[in-house]
Amino acid sequence: MYSNLQMPKGFKCAGIAAGIKSGGVKDMALIISDVPAASPAVFTQNQVCAAPVKVCREHLAHGVAHAIVMNSGIANACTGSEGIVAARAMAAEAAAIIGCEPQEVFICSTGRIGPQLPLDKIVPGIGTLVAAAQGGNVKETAEAMMTTDTRPKVSVAEITVDGKAVRIVGFAKGAGMIEPNMATMLSFIATDAAVEQHAFQSALKKAVDASFNRISVDGDQSTNDTVLALANGAAGNLPLGESSKDWKPFSMALEKVCFELAMMIVHDGEGADKFVTVNVAGARSDDEANLAARSVANSMLNKTAWAGTYPNWGRIMDAIGYSKAKVLEEQVSIHYDDRQVVANGMRTDIPQEDLIKVVSQTDFAINIDLHLGEGTATVYTCNCTEEYVRINVT
Amino acid sequence: MYSNLQMPKGFKCAGIAAGIKSGGVKDMALIISDVPAASPAVFTQNQVCAAPVKVCREHLAHGVAHAIVMNSGIANACTGSEGIVAARAMAAEAAAIIGCEPQEVFICSTGRIGPQLPLDKIVPGIGTLVAAAQGGNVKETAEAMMTTDTRPKVSVAEITVDGKAVRIVGFAKGAGMIEPNMATMLSFIATDAAVEQHAFQSALKKAVDASFNRISVDGDQSTNDTVLALANGAAGNLPLGESSKDWKPFSMALEKVCFELAMMIVHDGEGADKFVTVNVAGARSDDEANLAARSVANSMLNKTAWAGTYPNWGRIMDAIGYSKAKVLEEQVSIHYDDRQVVANGMRTDIPQEDLIKVVSQTDFAINIDLHLGEGTATVYTCNCTEEYVRINVT
Repeated sequence: MYSNLQMPKGFKCAGIAAGIKSGGVKDMALIISDVPAASPAVFTQNQVCAAPVKVCREHLAHGVAHAIVMNSGIANACTGSEGIVAARAMAAEAAAIIGCEPQEVFICSTGRIGPQLPLDKIVPGIGTLVAAAQGGNVKETAEAMMTTDTRPKVSVAEITVDGKAVRIVGFAKGAGMIEPNMATMLSFIATDAAVEQHAFQSALKKAVDASFNRISVDGDQSTNDTVLALANGAAGNLPLGESSKDWKPFSMALEKVCFELAMMIVHDGEGADKFVTVNVAGARSDDEANLAARSVANSMLNKTAWAGTYPNWGRIMDAIGYSKAKVLEEQVSIHYDDRQVVANGMRTDIPQEDLIKVVSQTDFAINIDLHLGEGTATVYTCNCTEEYVRINVT
Repeated sequence: MYSNLQMPKGFKCAGIAAGIKSGGVKDMALIISDVPAASPAVFTQNQVCAAPVKVCREHLAHGVAHAIVMNSGIANACTGSEGIVAARAMAAEAAAIIGCEPQEVFICSTGRIGPQLPLDKIVPGIGTLVAAAQGGNVKETAEAMMTTDTRPKVSVAEITVDGKAVRIVGFAKGAGMIEPNMATMLSFIATDAAVEQHAFQSALKKAVDASFNRISVDGDQSTNDTVLALANGAAGNLPLGESSKDWKPFSMALEKVCFELAMMIVHDGEGADKFVTVNVAGARSDDEANLAARSVANSMLNKTAWAGTYPNWGRIMDAIGYSKAKVLEEQVSIHYDDRQVVANGMRTDIPQEDLIKVVSQTDFAINIDLHLGEGTATVYTCNCTEEYVRINVT
């Protein structure tokens, strides 16, 4: 899959093995626009953040971008001033070959925290990437982004804007909010729509809040999380802004692409084989609903219970109780899918086998109502198996 | 061990099998003072809390207590008004047999969340307990408190107050901040010292803050956590208050008993075979130091790295970075025991084998300095192995 997928008009891409990883595994990717593109971005909130994140934050101020260059295998995090120099060198090398300003190149890294980037491999790799991008391949690009991912992650949307066909192609990598030695989630989104930078930044932020910011594999937030988008206008539409007639379909398509990619990350969660949607309603606010949902989604006791096909609702009550959301025990109701296990804070008389049937599925929902207000939130997560521990002990 | 251990003067204790658990496993315990005792207590902060916690909070206001009655196997949590009635019945039955007010009996439960207490087993069990307490046995009492614990937990201190020999005996159970179907950590402390109630409450709170509140197995806070203390004055000393000459030795002995019991809980952490001390210094405040230490101690990626004898300092940097403590990456230093792996936010050139040697031990420290202020904190935790997952899938 993805092999014959077309990039949006005016974009090329490539994925190659530059020798950062051993064994000829692909480890560098490029997405390049023929012309300067509007280029919003969203970054990790971690106070310890990678050199490429720091450099991308500077480049974001430039307003337009031509290309994204990334490597997997080494995160270029906790690498001090040498790491910053390497990140800038990556951008400068790409800019020189492409013929643009270094600030018009976004750079990303993902992989082990600590080591310095091997510029002797990365610099020639950039040349190889630009050459390969002439006959670029979406699948190889997505593969080059992978670390502990078991499969490449791509999502596409097609809409019509001003009567012009517009295409959005999104890439992502990630198998945990943080991975083994790695760090972590990256997503790149390319569209041939013409979009005003400011409106695009706010649409991207909104899409990320509704997608990548709603997932959790292990509750650890990485040093490298980055979502970058490029809109080059090759579709020929009038630039989209928030007052455009087609703004809503465009922003919904952007959100759909982000959401699909985010769900792919949870489905590929390290060691996980169950996808769990935690819905909280009836909180005093959406923020409190989010706190309660995250507390359930990140609780090791809930994640291991799901791994055991074990409908342990007491662990759900416990986790909402110690969350920072206001909870009145005697008001709480809980359903596994549509099967009610808790009413007024106590167990209903539903047969245990009905609940086991729900948690036996590879995809089910925990629906919690706090009955205290109108706040709602959803968090998408996965179970925690012995395999998660096995993956992460090295 | 513990078989020949004496209770403090004027105390008796017992542990029996009342039939709550199957197979003749001990499941009820009693600690009883001959006379009313000063009786401070500290309870879980979980908003979802067990019926005995709610009833104990009321009884605490009474100011003195004669006895603690507890059962293991069922937590009496999320049991509504029927659970409250059962908890009161437990206290009332014990009070009737002992000949005191129901408010002078503390009751505790630990075990599965949800089911109602089997009063048909608990009520006769109380009679058996009081009879058994005539020839009480510390070991059997501690055993009756166990759920997923692999061993009973008792700590003793002896000091001299006003020239009188004073003895403190503490019991605890717990193998996780929360356990499987269970909930969770309980500790009972008996002393024959005479202590003023108000001073005793503040000393207990302080001791708990420095011991039980400094440990973490899986980051989940239970519905039943309770620490109860009884001081009956049988040692014959003048009542201890905060201005007493021997206040400091007494409060230090109390803290020592709590600390030893807390360390026993971490050492018995579910599936764990390594004990890890996380020290944070140089935070802007003690509170921030605590946030950073907890973030490291509760990170699944750190706990699994320790299980893998894998000195992954990048995961420590990451966890402090996403904590709510202020962190400036380039100021951070990290030592494994006395081996420095991070200076100014970057890896030192210490050989990897030196670090592996440290994390190969069953007991080691992570020493973090944020270099931003005077705040310090210590959290005691354990590793997370595949066995933790195996224990918790059912």
